[in-house]
Amino acid sequence: MPPAGPRSGDAIFASVERVNAELFTLTYGATVRQLLTDLEEVEEVNKQLDQMGYNIGIRLIDEFLAKSNISRCVDFKETADVIAKVGLKMFLGVNATVTNWDAEGTCCSIILEDNPLVDFVELPDTCQGLHYCNILSGVIRGALEMVSMKTEVTWLRDMLRGDDMFELQVKLLKQIPEEYPYKDDE
Amino acid sequence: MPPAGPRSGDAIFASVERVNAELFTLTYGATVRQLLTDLEEVEEVNKQLDQMGYNIGIRLIDEFLAKSNISRCVDFKETADVIAKVGLKMFLGVNATVTNWDAEGTCCSIILEDNPLVDFVELPDTCQGLHYCNILSGVIRGALEMVSMKTEVTWLRDMLRGDDMFELQVKLLKQIPEEYPYKDDE
Repeated sequence: MPPAGPRSGDAIFASVERVNAELFTLTYGATVRQLLTDLEEVEEVNKQLDQMGYNIGIRLIDEFLAKSNISRCVDFKETADVIAKVGLKMFLGVNATVTNWDAEGTCCSIILEDNPLVDFVELPDTCQGLHYCNILSGVIRGALEMVSMKTEVTWLRDMLRGDDMFELQVKLLKQIPEEYPYKDDE
Repeated sequence: MPPAGPRSGDAIFASVERVNAELFTLTYGATVRQLLTDLEEVEEVNKQLDQMGYNIGIRLIDEFLAKSNISRCVDFKETADVIAKVGLKMFLGVNATVTNWDAEGTCCSIILEDNPLVDFVELPDTCQGLHYCNILSGVIRGALEMVSMKTEVTWLRDMLRGDDMFELQVKLLKQIPEEYPYKDDE
């Protein structure tokens, strides 16, 4: 059956199985705290969160493609829009916008208006270098790699560090050529 | 304003903020995997997951009491029913039943028909001693402690270990007397 066309993030979010956001937030918080205890170095925790996110992203992309009916983006601009409008809505239930494009169309910022990961979170002074939401940048990096885009994803602004919003820079490093045409199973 | 009476788990679950269950499942999976890497000993991971859950439970109880309009259970039997019918529904969206009561009414089993924590999970042979869902038993233990019940929560059956359901034994060890009457803030 051919895909019925892309679905909105809202519609998908309403139709998928969900869990209570506070449970998710607290579970994530407990994870970060545990990593801080086990690894001690904040920089090491940043790396691990990113790696955890990457491992999640390379699996989550399947659910994303299956549920969104999005098969292929024409370019990186469309990809960024889809992440902001469909992906983040579908998984976290948040609204996001894309801005700050460079002239080449290979680097932009995703602005998060809301972020359930950080509800009730305050960083103690000892954790000022922590990128608390690094799991999210890792997820995006991992998911994009599975659709042949090698990216660098960096937090430019972070409300836990006193900024007025979350700004995630997504930079396309390389488009990996696909080696064989994908085929439908049917 | 006096509480309007208890609300059903379904109604609460429908009204609270939620995130995609698959994201939650994969995030939890990444956490367990990370702990296995960092701590190496399966038994140590079991302990940490339980402790993480405990830390979550002592906070989640506030959301539970606020959203459910449940102020006080008459006895441990009612408490167990509330966990199964309201709590697990409200946070994980799952149905659960209470069974196997002992004669004293201080020990029972909660049977989970479904468990989003374990979707897509298979334990490798090296992890056979892992209580993958130990975070959940920790949450229940922590939450109950905040309402003055010291409990022991143990997995008796586990689908990841080949059982046909999840069975969580909840044993009341001690009811901690409340030292002062709670007062409303108003």
